[in-house]
Amino acid sequence: MTGRVTVIGLGPGDDALRTPQADAALAAADDLIGYGPYLDRVRPRAGQRRHPSDNGAELARARLALTLAAEGRHVAVVSGGDAGVFGMASALYEAVEHGPASWAALDIDVVPGVSAMFAAAARVGAPLGHDFCAISLSDNLKSWDTICRRLRAAAEAGFVIALYNPASRTRPWQLAAAFDMLRTVLPPTTPVVFARDVARPGERIAIVPLGEADAAEADMRTILLIGSAATRLIAREGRPPRIYAPRSAQ
Amino acid sequence: MTGRVTVIGLGPGDDALRTPQADAALAAADDLIGYGPYLDRVRPRAGQRRHPSDNGAELARARLALTLAAEGRHVAVVSGGDAGVFGMASALYEAVEHGPASWAALDIDVVPGVSAMFAAAARVGAPLGHDFCAISLSDNLKSWDTICRRLRAAAEAGFVIALYNPASRTRPWQLAAAFDMLRTVLPPTTPVVFARDVARPGERIAIVPLGEADAAEADMRTILLIGSAATRLIAREGRPPRIYAPRSAQ
Repeated sequence: MTGRVTVIGLGPGDDALRTPQADAALAAADDLIGYGPYLDRVRPRAGQRRHPSDNGAELARARLALTLAAEGRHVAVVSGGDAGVFGMASALYEAVEHGPASWAALDIDVVPGVSAMFAAAARVGAPLGHDFCAISLSDNLKSWDTICRRLRAAAEAGFVIALYNPASRTRPWQLAAAFDMLRTVLPPTTPVVFARDVARPGERIAIVPLGEADAAEADMRTILLIGSAATRLIAREGRPPRIYAPRSAQ
Repeated sequence: MTGRVTVIGLGPGDDALRTPQADAALAAADDLIGYGPYLDRVRPRAGQRRHPSDNGAELARARLALTLAAEGRHVAVVSGGDAGVFGMASALYEAVEHGPASWAALDIDVVPGVSAMFAAAARVGAPLGHDFCAISLSDNLKSWDTICRRLRAAAEAGFVIALYNPASRTRPWQLAAAFDMLRTVLPPTTPVVFARDVARPGERIAIVPLGEADAAEADMRTILLIGSAATRLIAREGRPPRIYAPRSAQ
């Protein structure tokens, strides 16, 4: 029996945003591996083994998946959102490259998903409607200098910015520093979206001007969308505003 | 009866990558509006009116949707991939902002989807696994200078680049010019993915080094992924290679 690993994007949370391809891949697995809260989103199935792990254990998770697949098992590795966007797909291939040659011969597939930034964008209008970028603010694996350089380059070139991993207990000051830097490049009226638990129970979405954005409002379950100077805000009487990126933004 | 517009991302093509939320929104619509080939992906339903239109007619499509909704109809506007990524969501809000005040009072929702770049990335590994950006190469609505400036800024700052709308009959030279410019910034070994008709019949995927990338291989049904200097390639005996973006890429 030939083992395989399928890395699956579960989408942002709501089951209605999980694809049938993801459901089929989950159903076909012998073993399910992932960060505990993501595994909790998958309905238990008789005969399947579940291997929940803590946040930050990406490489250990990847190696476990490849070890089980090398024994002939069908392994599903789950990520929130899209598995290729700051998810488990990259960690899996990193483990393959640095692991035994037999791992590179395994069948490995990725099932794409709806990313958290797309779900957040949909809630507030169309803020990613022109050129945009996605940046992880975590300096656990790359330097803070690299992150600042990318943020500045993106803002100066007119990209809308989706910001992943804006804050955590061990990274308390980075988002405020990022806001300070961005305020030197972008107008204070630039809309910033704080989207917490998007498409999950307790979802909370706020749009604030960059000049008033408070880093303390973000945590590890928050994703941010930072507009460009071209981002437009449509006020609506008695309802939350909508923002969008004009397709023509220079 | 209160009208509404729902802008729906159909995903890259394969029905198995369309979300249940998209299916439900399609089923609830009185009118379906979209580019003909996208509408063709939606199963006909008794009582629904279909309004296919040509490529490039985004604003006309948006105004038709809002006009019908103002008459009390439930209108679904469909896009390929995610509707917020170079899709109809931005055009819809552009029409709202510049249209009669009554349009801003309508219920407008966006249903996110799996984008073509995520589907293309999944096919070749995890090339979007660190900071990345999405750029439309179309200079129909923005200047070529703006596009070049963004491409250069992204490559210099170490972003992986997903390139939408790389070529068409009326835009024949732009991609070759983009490759020429990128070759002054990135190593010639940088992997470039040409993904044509991804997740659709006839799908064709190729990974070539930037130094050998031929713009003539791309058309309007192609999406490109251009690695960073950090992108890794894993050779596999007798099988296509895999590429991935190390999470630690500086």
